[in-house]
Amino acid sequence: MSLIVVGSMAFDAIETPFGKSDRIIGGAATYIAWSASNFTKSIKQISVVGGDFPKEELQALEQRGVSMEGVQIKEDEKSFFWSGKYHMDMNTRDTLETQLNVLANFQPVVPQSFQDCEFLMLGNLVPAVQMSVIEQLKHRPKLVVMDTMNFWMEVALDDLKKVLKKVDVLLVNDSEARELSHEFSLVKAAKIIMKMGPQYLIIKKGEHGALLFHKDNVFFAPALPLEDVFDPTGAGDTFAGGFIGHIARTKDVSFDNMKTAIIVGSAMASFCVEKFGTERLRTLTKKDIDYRIVQFQELVNFDIELV
Amino acid sequence: MSLIVVGSMAFDAIETPFGKSDRIIGGAATYIAWSASNFTKSIKQISVVGGDFPKEELQALEQRGVSMEGVQIKEDEKSFFWSGKYHMDMNTRDTLETQLNVLANFQPVVPQSFQDCEFLMLGNLVPAVQMSVIEQLKHRPKLVVMDTMNFWMEVALDDLKKVLKKVDVLLVNDSEARELSHEFSLVKAAKIIMKMGPQYLIIKKGEHGALLFHKDNVFFAPALPLEDVFDPTGAGDTFAGGFIGHIARTKDVSFDNMKTAIIVGSAMASFCVEKFGTERLRTLTKKDIDYRIVQFQELVNFDIELV
Repeated sequence: MSLIVVGSMAFDAIETPFGKSDRIIGGAATYIAWSASNFTKSIKQISVVGGDFPKEELQALEQRGVSMEGVQIKEDEKSFFWSGKYHMDMNTRDTLETQLNVLANFQPVVPQSFQDCEFLMLGNLVPAVQMSVIEQLKHRPKLVVMDTMNFWMEVALDDLKKVLKKVDVLLVNDSEARELSHEFSLVKAAKIIMKMGPQYLIIKKGEHGALLFHKDNVFFAPALPLEDVFDPTGAGDTFAGGFIGHIARTKDVSFDNMKTAIIVGSAMASFCVEKFGTERLRTLTKKDIDYRIVQFQELVNFDIELV
Repeated sequence: MSLIVVGSMAFDAIETPFGKSDRIIGGAATYIAWSASNFTKSIKQISVVGGDFPKEELQALEQRGVSMEGVQIKEDEKSFFWSGKYHMDMNTRDTLETQLNVLANFQPVVPQSFQDCEFLMLGNLVPAVQMSVIEQLKHRPKLVVMDTMNFWMEVALDDLKKVLKKVDVLLVNDSEARELSHEFSLVKAAKIIMKMGPQYLIIKKGEHGALLFHKDNVFFAPALPLEDVFDPTGAGDTFAGGFIGHIARTKDVSFDNMKTAIIVGSAMASFCVEKFGTERLRTLTKKDIDYRIVQFQELVNFDIELV
C-alpha cells in the first residue's frame, strides 16, 4: 500500500526580482516527494537522473521513506536542466533555457515492488511517459492524480487527452485550464475539462488560491497572504505533494477529504515560496505545518447567522 | 440611529465583451443604497443629481427606506456621467468619457435629521467632499468606512491622506493599495496603509476575492466562481453596501463581525455582476441572499483534524 510519484528530478537556475540562484536541485518529483513525505512514509519514486545528480540528494529522500528503486541513474548522461526568470508579479515567468538531457528518451520502468501502489501521482511530464506508467500497473490505483502544463497542450495534445481519460484528478493552473477548454470562464472551463476524463479538477491560481471542482460542487482554498514571495518555483508540485500526501495518509478519496487535502497542499506551497528551491521544505517540522494549517482556518472561517 | 451613505448618483454607459448598455442608472451611492437596504431600513443618502435624473429612481430607493433629504437636485444641471469599456478579463477597464456636471461644484449639506448617524459610508468621491461630511457631523459615528480610487491618489493625495486619518475602515482594490503604499506585497502594503489612519483595511481583488486586515490579523473572503460575469460596474460599491448594511443591522463593529460583513458584501457583489447596472439588485429577495451566503459557506468550509 503506497504512493507512486512520477516526474522529473533535475537542476534549476532561477532568477526572481529578489535574487538569483546557482544551479540548484529541482524537478517536479523532487518537490512532490519532499512535500508528500511529511504525511506518508511509503513513497515510491519513478524518475531519471544523470550521473551529475548528487547521490546525497537521493539519499536524503530515502531517509524520509522514499524508495528510489524506480529512479534510473544514467551515469554517462546529464540531468534535466531548466532555467527561468520571474516577472515582478511572480505569477508569470520566462523560460531562459531547457536542456532535456536524460528526459529526452526516458522510458519509465515500474519495479515489481511498486505494484501494490494505491495512489499514483503523475507529476508534470511528457504525457506518453505518464501513460506508460499507468499501463504498467497491473491493478488500477485507488486514485490517479495528474499534473500537466501548457507546453504539452501545444506539442502533445492527443497524447495528453488519452492520459486524461485515465485519471481521476487533474491539476492545472488558470491559464492552462483556459487553454485546454477554450473557455475564459473557469466555471465553464471546468465543466468542459471534466468531460475529458477527470472527475475532479483542481485549478491553481498562484497567489489567488486554488479551486476544486467535482460535478456541480466547487471548493475554494485561498493562498496565504505572505509578506514576501521569494521563489515560486516548485510551488505547484509542492501543492500536489501535500494534496496526495494527505490523501495517502488518510486513504479517503471523498470530495470532503479532497477539500482538506487542498488546504494541506496550499499550506505546503506557502512554505515552498519562502526560500529558493526546496530549501524551506527540508527544514519543515510537523509543528510548522500544523501551525500553518491553523492559519488557513483562521484566514477563511467565519460565523454567520441567517435571520 | 442610522446609516449615512455619501456618493454619486449618476448615469453610466457600459461596454463589455458580452454587450453594451444605453445610458443607465449608476453611481457609487446608488449601488451602496440598493445593496445596504437589504439589511437596514434606516439609510440617509447624501448626493447630488441634475434635473435629468429620473425622479422615480429616487422614489424607488425611498420605498426601500432610504431618505433623500440629503440629495440635492439641481434642476438646471446635468447628472454625473461616466462611460467605460471592459477588457476581456473583466478586471480592467478603460474610461471612455467622464462628465462631472453637478459633481464639479458639489457642496454636501448634512441635514439636521441626519445627525443621529451611527454609521457613515463614504462612497468613492472627491476626498474634500468626504471630509466635509465628516466635519459637519456633531458626533463621531461608531464606524466610518471610506471607499476611494486611484484617481484621487493622483490628483488629490494630500486631501485623501487627511480623510484617511478620520476613518476606521478603508476599502481599495489591489492596484490602489499598491499605488497608495508603494509596496507590491499586499501584506506589506496593508501595514503601511493602516499607519495612515484606518485601523481596518479591505483590499478588493475582484474575481479573486477580498482581504480584511486589522493589526496582525488577516481574513480572506473568496469571490463566488461564476459562469458568466456580465458587468462588473458597481460591484465594489455593492460590496461596500453589503458590508456596511450588515454592520448597521448587527451594530457590531468587532473584527469577527467584519469577517461576516465581508462575506455578505461578497455575496451582494456576486449578484451585481450578473446583469447590467443595478438590474439584478432590484429583484433580489432575502431568500436569494441567504442561499448565496450558504454557497459561500460551502465554498470555503473544510474540516481538518491535526494528528
